[in-house]
Amino acid sequence: MASWLAEISEAETEPLVLASVLLSLIVVYLAAKVGGELCARINLPPVLGELIGGVVVGVSALHLIVFPEAGASPESLLIDFEALVTGETPAGLAQVFRGESGVISILAELGVIILLFEIGLESDLKELIRVGPQAAIVAIVGVVVPFAAGTAGLITLFGVDTVPAVFAGAALTATSIGITAKVLAELQKLSSTEGQIIIGAAVLDDVLGIIVLAVVASLAKTGEIQILNVVYLIGGATVFLVGSIFLGRLLSPYFVAVVNQPRTRGQVLISSLIFAFVLSYIAAAIQLEAILGAFAAGLILAETPKHKELEEQISPVADMLVPVFFIVVGARTDISVLNPLDPNNRPGLIIASFLVVVAILGKVVTGFAVFGQPGINRLAVGIGMVPRGEVGLVFAGVGAASGVLSESLDAAIIVMVIVTTFLAPPLLRLVFQDGSTSAQAEAQSPVQEDALPTASASQVSGQD
Amino acid sequence: MASWLAEISEAETEPLVLASVLLSLIVVYLAAKVGGELCARINLPPVLGELIGGVVVGVSALHLIVFPEAGASPESLLIDFEALVTGETPAGLAQVFRGESGVISILAELGVIILLFEIGLESDLKELIRVGPQAAIVAIVGVVVPFAAGTAGLITLFGVDTVPAVFAGAALTATSIGITAKVLAELQKLSSTEGQIIIGAAVLDDVLGIIVLAVVASLAKTGEIQILNVVYLIGGATVFLVGSIFLGRLLSPYFVAVVNQPRTRGQVLISSLIFAFVLSYIAAAIQLEAILGAFAAGLILAETPKHKELEEQISPVADMLVPVFFIVVGARTDISVLNPLDPNNRPGLIIASFLVVVAILGKVVTGFAVFGQPGINRLAVGIGMVPRGEVGLVFAGVGAASGVLSESLDAAIIVMVIVTTFLAPPLLRLVFQDGSTSAQAEAQSPVQEDALPTASASQVSGQD
Repeated sequence: MASWLAEISEAETEPLVLASVLLSLIVVYLAAKVGGELCARINLPPVLGELIGGVVVGVSALHLIVFPEAGASPESLLIDFEALVTGETPAGLAQVFRGESGVISILAELGVIILLFEIGLESDLKELIRVGPQAAIVAIVGVVVPFAAGTAGLITLFGVDTVPAVFAGAALTATSIGITAKVLAELQKLSSTEGQIIIGAAVLDDVLGIIVLAVVASLAKTGEIQILNVVYLIGGATVFLVGSIFLGRLLSPYFVAVVNQPRTRGQVLISSLIFAFVLSYIAAAIQLEAILGAFAAGLILAETPKHKELEEQISPVADMLVPVFFIVVGARTDISVLNPLDPNNRPGLIIASFLVVVAILGKVVTGFAVFGQPGINRLAVGIGMVPRGEVGLVFAGVGAASGVLSESLDAAIIVMVIVTTFLAPPLLRLVFQDGSTSAQAEAQSPVQEDALPTASASQVSGQD
Repeated sequence: MASWLAEISEAETEPLVLASVLLSLIVVYLAAKVGGELCARINLPPVLGELIGGVVVGVSALHLIVFPEAGASPESLLIDFEALVTGETPAGLAQVFRGESGVISILAELGVIILLFEIGLESDLKELIRVGPQAAIVAIVGVVVPFAAGTAGLITLFGVDTVPAVFAGAALTATSIGITAKVLAELQKLSSTEGQIIIGAAVLDDVLGIIVLAVVASLAKTGEIQILNVVYLIGGATVFLVGSIFLGRLLSPYFVAVVNQPRTRGQVLISSLIFAFVLSYIAAAIQLEAILGAFAAGLILAETPKHKELEEQISPVADMLVPVFFIVVGARTDISVLNPLDPNNRPGLIIASFLVVVAILGKVVTGFAVFGQPGINRLAVGIGMVPRGEVGLVFAGVGAASGVLSESLDAAIIVMVIVTTFLAPPLLRLVFQDGSTSAQAEAQSPVQEDALPTASASQVSGQD
């Protein structure tokens, strides 16, 4: 009789919120599994299928998973269905809608936190430090080149004003660590040298992205750049990443000692989640991203003797929460801006073609900036940095909210994000299959395609 | 850069909601693990530790996990902490508080759904049907005896009016299936004959509880009993339970065929969750409880060849979500009504002593109503039905909201719920250790104490 939570609550809509969350999760999982399985069968990365599944159930098509802030069509068909089933009042339904979409948003954020925790667990800190200089080069080149080329091109070729051009250029610098990491895991390339360079660079790019966003957002708002804020963010990120890993390694023997004396179920998993959530909270509290904390926590726990057990236990949790993230990313993407038949879209689509070219070339060159690593697949490194994903959408969202971007430029950024995000996974699979990969050991990764560990060999070969 | 979800949202408080949810989960897991481990070490059921942990962090003591509807002290120390860290406005904080407690409530409800799904997976439908008549007797006796004795006693001994006496008597009929099932799983008695009788009776009691609540709530509101509603609920429950199990068994070969061809991770888990959530949604939509649907889904999937794999995969998900439920139950319980030093509490405490005696004896006799099962531990069956838990709180909550109950009678019901809930787990462990249990096979249950399957034998012996 679980609805007691609601019965004793003043908000009598809570059982309806639970029902709507259950319906939403059913839709999310159906979309993720159908999309993922279809893509896997036509030799595309399953995560692409999840993104497309999200588009199908989201604001662009079926309106099943939508969020109140989605401008054009805030109507949720799920909520309409609930209205039919329950006969709830419109005011009550609006409250249910807010509650339901709030819960799904938070589940999506917990999903990407768990994903980055899992990626951290499977990364090798020593290898990351070894390829650190290369990763830094890739990250910096991947910020500078697209930004400079994009901003200059918009000003000279399209006559865009400086501030909006800078904003659009900034949107080109992002990399979606979530999508890149997931594709690498699916290809079992996470532990290759290329994989570790990409992950290291994507993490640094995430930090750089936060700084770039802070800069352009204050530029858009006040016309000035707040130097102190930039210094604070750079300092905070450095202290956090170095400090958490240093302290974490110092304290991890105590962690192992605690989880070695369990009298209750789930001791390893829960202790690890506490650790991951603490670092995530700290990262979020100092204006960084929660996912950076989760990644650091994973890196630290990867070095403990418990990491195998933990990987096995975190895997079903990730299976449950991570698809919510990718479906939500897809569901929030309004692909109607891609329609060339709508005359309103055409100016945006022309600028978008330019942005897409800069976005891809500007990241592909980063692979060729890597030094001292003969024999690595440079193209794969560059392609790995291409997907803008949810990070690119932030820039578009902040730009639209601040009023700096014209409608067509805003649409062009969204198109650029969609194309790079949906193109990168198949491209990455292609270049990793064709190109020569390094001799680095590519251990069988637990973040793999198959659900059955015992059947992995046949399935992996069946996919390729 | 996960806070994009927030950046593009109109609600700028969303990153704060995420941060508050992370903080809440840290508190929930710390309370659950510390409470559970301490109880396990002094030979008490860990779930009791989680409930007490919830009381410590909840409205009764630390005010870390609180909910807006908790009358007396709606202040959350976590939100105060967030105010310090972020400098958010009071209006923004109120929004964050509502968002955060909404998410935690839903996570708690998902937790008890997953718990009942897991219990269903570990139950044996054939055994449940075999002990069905006994379970029905236990459930019916356990509703009739406490209701009749409680109502009559309140009217004759305490001079309570008929309607409030009927309401309080109804509150005595509940059984918390969650707490009972969890303790049985911890004791590894779930698959014993006693365990299956208790589970079957608790499920029936849940249905009976819904009907009793509907009856007394309408009695309190209108002074009349709506016979049609009662007939609808009984019919709906019967059709749902019989229909879902019949259809589920019919369709389960197709389920196995689908999950046998996975190309992506988590196929078995996600397909099963879709199935469980669909049945949960239907159960909730027809005014039953979502947990009944989850239990039915578990029962059906327990009969498929996939059930071992599924049990392994659902286990970490349960480890993550189930503690949220027990902590929230504890956190919502205001134990200040137990303080005999407060003169306001004394009338309630006197009535409460009577209710506690009726509550325990009224359920203990149910074990002796079991027929045709020589050699079973009758005391254990009765004790298994004692905890009122969250279900009892519903009655108190509905009663307080409807204004039917006097303050002292309302407090007395809460005291009865607290005492039965916190007393039952240790009593159950005691009677199962002392009493003779049936010869029924007691397979090692995956819902067990230890986190390490390899170390289970030594730990289980270490606990007893």
